[in-house]
Amino acid sequence: MQLGLIGLGKMGGNMRDRLRAAGHTVVGYDTNPEISDATTVADMVEQLTESPRVVWVMVPVKAVRPVLEELAGLLGEGDVVIEGGNSKWINDHHNADLLAGRGIGYLDCGVSGGVWGKELGYALMCGGSSEDVAKAQPIFDALKPPGEFGFVHAGEVGAGHFAKMVHNGIEYAIMQAYAEGWELLAASGEVTDVPAVFESWREGTVIRSWLLDLAVNALKEDPNLDKIRGYAEDSGEGRWTVEAAIDLAVPAPAISASLFARFASRQDDSPAMKMVAAMRNQFGGHAVLA
Amino acid sequence: MQLGLIGLGKMGGNMRDRLRAAGHTVVGYDTNPEISDATTVADMVEQLTESPRVVWVMVPVKAVRPVLEELAGLLGEGDVVIEGGNSKWINDHHNADLLAGRGIGYLDCGVSGGVWGKELGYALMCGGSSEDVAKAQPIFDALKPPGEFGFVHAGEVGAGHFAKMVHNGIEYAIMQAYAEGWELLAASGEVTDVPAVFESWREGTVIRSWLLDLAVNALKEDPNLDKIRGYAEDSGEGRWTVEAAIDLAVPAPAISASLFARFASRQDDSPAMKMVAAMRNQFGGHAVLA
Amino acid sequence: MQLGLIGLGKMGGNMRDRLRAAGHTVVGYDTNPEISDATTVADMVEQLTESPRVVWVMVPVKAVRPVLEELAGLLGEGDVVIEGGNSKWINDHHNADLLAGRGIGYLDCGVSGGVWGKELGYALMCGGSSEDVAKAQPIFDALKPPGEFGFVHAGEVGAGHFAKMVHNGIEYAIMQAYAEGWELLAASGEVTDVPAVFESWREGTVIRSWLLDLAVNALKEDPNLDKIRGYAEDSGEGRWTVEAAIDLAVPAPAISASLFARFASRQDDSPAMKMVAAMRNQFGGHAVLA
Amino acid sequence: MQLGLIGLGKMGGNMRDRLRAAGHTVVGYDTNPEISDATTVADMVEQLTESPRVVWVMVPVKAVRPVLEELAGLLGEGDVVIEGGNSKWINDHHNADLLAGRGIGYLDCGVSGGVWGKELGYALMCGGSSEDVAKAQPIFDALKPPGEFGFVHAGEVGAGHFAKMVHNGIEYAIMQAYAEGWELLAASGEVTDVPAVFESWREGTVIRSWLLDLAVNALKEDPNLDKIRGYAEDSGEGRWTVEAAIDLAVPAPAISASLFARFASRQDDSPAMKMVAAMRNQFGGHAVLA
Repeated sequence: MQLGLIGLGKMGGNMRDRLRAAGHTVVGYDTNPEISDATTVADMVEQLTESPRVVWVMVPVKAVRPVLEELAGLLGEGDVVIEGGNSKWINDHHNADLLAGRGIGYLDCGVSGGVWGKELGYALMCGGSSEDVAKAQPIFDALKPPGEFGFVHAGEVGAGHFAKMVHNGIEYAIMQAYAEGWELLAASGEVTDVPAVFESWREGTVIRSWLLDLAVNALKEDPNLDKIRGYAEDSGEGRWTVEAAIDLAVPAPAISASLFARFASRQDDSPAMKMVAAMRNQFGGHAVLA
Repeated sequence: MQLGLIGLGKMGGNMRDRLRAAGHTVVGYDTNPEISDATTVADMVEQLTESPRVVWVMVPVKAVRPVLEELAGLLGEGDVVIEGGNSKWINDHHNADLLAGRGIGYLDCGVSGGVWGKELGYALMCGGSSEDVAKAQPIFDALKPPGEFGFVHAGEVGAGHFAKMVHNGIEYAIMQAYAEGWELLAASGEVTDVPAVFESWREGTVIRSWLLDLAVNALKEDPNLDKIRGYAEDSGEGRWTVEAAIDLAVPAPAISASLFARFASRQDDSPAMKMVAAMRNQFGGHAVLA
Repeated sequence: MQLGLIGLGKMGGNMRDRLRAAGHTVVGYDTNPEISDATTVADMVEQLTESPRVVWVMVPVKAVRPVLEELAGLLGEGDVVIEGGNSKWINDHHNADLLAGRGIGYLDCGVSGGVWGKELGYALMCGGSSEDVAKAQPIFDALKPPGEFGFVHAGEVGAGHFAKMVHNGIEYAIMQAYAEGWELLAASGEVTDVPAVFESWREGTVIRSWLLDLAVNALKEDPNLDKIRGYAEDSGEGRWTVEAAIDLAVPAPAISASLFARFASRQDDSPAMKMVAAMRNQFGGHAVLA
Repeated sequence: MQLGLIGLGKMGGNMRDRLRAAGHTVVGYDTNPEISDATTVADMVEQLTESPRVVWVMVPVKAVRPVLEELAGLLGEGDVVIEGGNSKWINDHHNADLLAGRGIGYLDCGVSGGVWGKELGYALMCGGSSEDVAKAQPIFDALKPPGEFGFVHAGEVGAGHFAKMVHNGIEYAIMQAYAEGWELLAASGEVTDVPAVFESWREGTVIRSWLLDLAVNALKEDPNLDKIRGYAEDSGEGRWTVEAAIDLAVPAPAISASLFARFASRQDDSPAMKMVAAMRNQFGGHAVLA
């Protein structure tokens, strides 16, 4: 089938390749004309000749709303827009309302898979009406990994991004789990070949996983991770996960610990620990470092 | 090759089956005569006719030391004992010393795989001398999963159980990660089919893993886990992991959060929260529940 | 001076008493006519004869906005409204805008002191313009404890509630600190008189504090806290503190741990721990409780 | 009364001053002859002419055992030794056994108060028999702060150091509470005068405490703590508190979070966060810092 695809960056570009390899017609639009198949969003929409038209939006979060506003004026009754970026789930309701005024359907679709998705397939978590999902199902089928898993229609609008958000929250804590274990193995003198231990865990253990496989890859390239600084960004979903947990009074100690560890990793000097050091100095005369 | 195997419970019994299926001769001893191949430990040792003799000990932690003391009097120069249970790594050094006095080698071998190991193979993390490992290698090869992973010679005596301990610490935090995510999905109304979301994650996601597969199995049997109480035991390695982290000044916030969540799950009423409620009542007149 | 005071509940009623004892004229309004000095808010405003008029709002969070909307129609140029409740600081800006349209000043004032404030004085954290603060200063002076501490003009509108929010976040973690320590003392057999230990800490220790004094009071009434359930509510500021920390990428592990401990205290059965138990059962055949 | 006092460092020296000011005779011994009242421990014991003899040991943890062994040969039936240092409570039982062989009593006494104790008095938490406590009571009375608090006979041998250990664990989490709050106030633009907010909290608030007073002192000297690095040591009792909690299956999330924050503050580069960054790079192509 035909698909309009807005945003041809690291994710969108690879998705276009995977969809074309599956036999679909993708009309891609990007602000970079060198990789774009259309001169404007309007031009892209015009190139879509099938009905209903389906447009996948794969742009940075800040750009989502302006793109949807433009699409609201270009698409019409029965068409479907898929927000495949990292929108916060509560914004999906507003986005759906915007398009509903023109009779345009809206699906929110969380996408996982990173740089590996082009080859292995992307995991898709989708929210919206069954009718709209059906219109885009061939696209989902081409993007997802082969086999029975990797796609879910999770619920109404918002459910897709909510599920993806929780996926990422879980991801934070799993990464933190391996990271703490790795640091502990490396800090102790007991285990003399830490990368070999990690690699051995790939089969037969309770903790075998894809993230473990990636950790093994990283340790093969750099056995002590000497070339990498202990500095970890966060992309938002981890924060939203903890916020949603707070909102729903759900204890989330491991996920929040993982989030805070990332925050701390980005501080050259911890203000909180300045205060702890200052108080120790006040009551015990303990030396402080300047 | 021949192997003496002491302890034929859930783990040891399955290991005997897997080893025999691979063509090895296993003389098993258990205090339960119905499943034992020998009347006593001494009888078991006598049935081992190859040299060196290799004996695998697979008994509850408390029984390890008495069994080793008995073996010290039955085995001799060049023989090897493998402690495959959940001994604390620091005890391995004492165990090795005991046997070294008789010229008997000692290997500590952490075993992962649970009830699935018989079919899929057991992950093995081994500590001791290369010479002793070599004597038992055919046994390790038969127990481990097929392929290149699942066995590691992690270092000197103690390294095997240390690696297994860290494996289990990581396991705690990974389980906690999925558990927090599941609770959050279930608590929110956004996602209407939570088991379907978990199942979809099995391919293409960053968080695909064997533990996720098990969670999906559990949700198939009981979609809301209504039949299971939120009560989680801990078997010791999680505690030791946090203790080792404290000893080495390694931050372990996610693993310790996971351990404390298990402790809390076993309290009918939290003493600490009684105190919090009491203080709230004192300063704010907030009602307390009796 | 004269003060209009809306809301005469546990807090507002005591504040009226303290202000009158200090010689101020308080015209209180409450929906409960038995304790109200005025029949309506309009009646209350009419009874204020000094200029500028100052009105303190001390109502539940949900009622704040409607009360402010009513006051916007009753007060005028140069008058001042003080929001003394537990509004979220970000709402203060909206509140101030509402009143600014009528030339009415707005102060947000976080109030601490609970049931003890009437006697000992209330700690006040205030946000707004210096001009507006000056108009209400006699009221602040009467409400605050004697001495040099207990009142702060923390910054522009919002700063008062922000400071109060952080105060409460700190409060959560301090309470959790004593609570964990108390549980540990009680769980161990080492210390035979736990209440005596807590009481002794009231002088000379690093951890002496007002909350400790309250804990001692509670232990005098009920040495093992047998009459109190380990169930702790939270009133919102703790959640906002963690949310603000997340927003500003500030690690807040102790405050968030305290918040999550309260959440967990209110669960009869932990969903997350059901999942942990389910996974343990899947991989290890570990028994689960039904 | 007479007291032998071994160790005249920061703590012991001040204690000697306070005891002498209260009219007691202190024979102090220190390896530094310039501050010592005796040439050797034996000389010190000889100068004690009252019976029973009471000797207070105030030396670094490592030196405790050798000093006790020396005292075992110098003191006799009915004499009492007080271990006032930071011994781990489980060692108190061994220490008591050593001395009991010679009929010498043993008290473990946790001491809090830091550099302020000389003036304000030291909080004392004591373990041992009532008979031995009575022999030293005049010394305890002189060291403790005036008034009814500041001394507790917490239980048998070990109870004093256990109580002191828990005191310090609580201290860690309270300090962390203020530290997190301070960082959050400083990070947000809402509050323009953070030291003023802290100072105002000294009266009327729920969180007024001696540690808050110290934090205010520190902020007066250095309003943004610019001169202090965010680097915090730990002296052992915090670690033991968490270990004891783990041993007794007591959840201690806030205290352990505080301990781990100190560990992290001493790492130039977090190994765990290297691993997190490495995994992010593997799955998402996210940049890493070198």
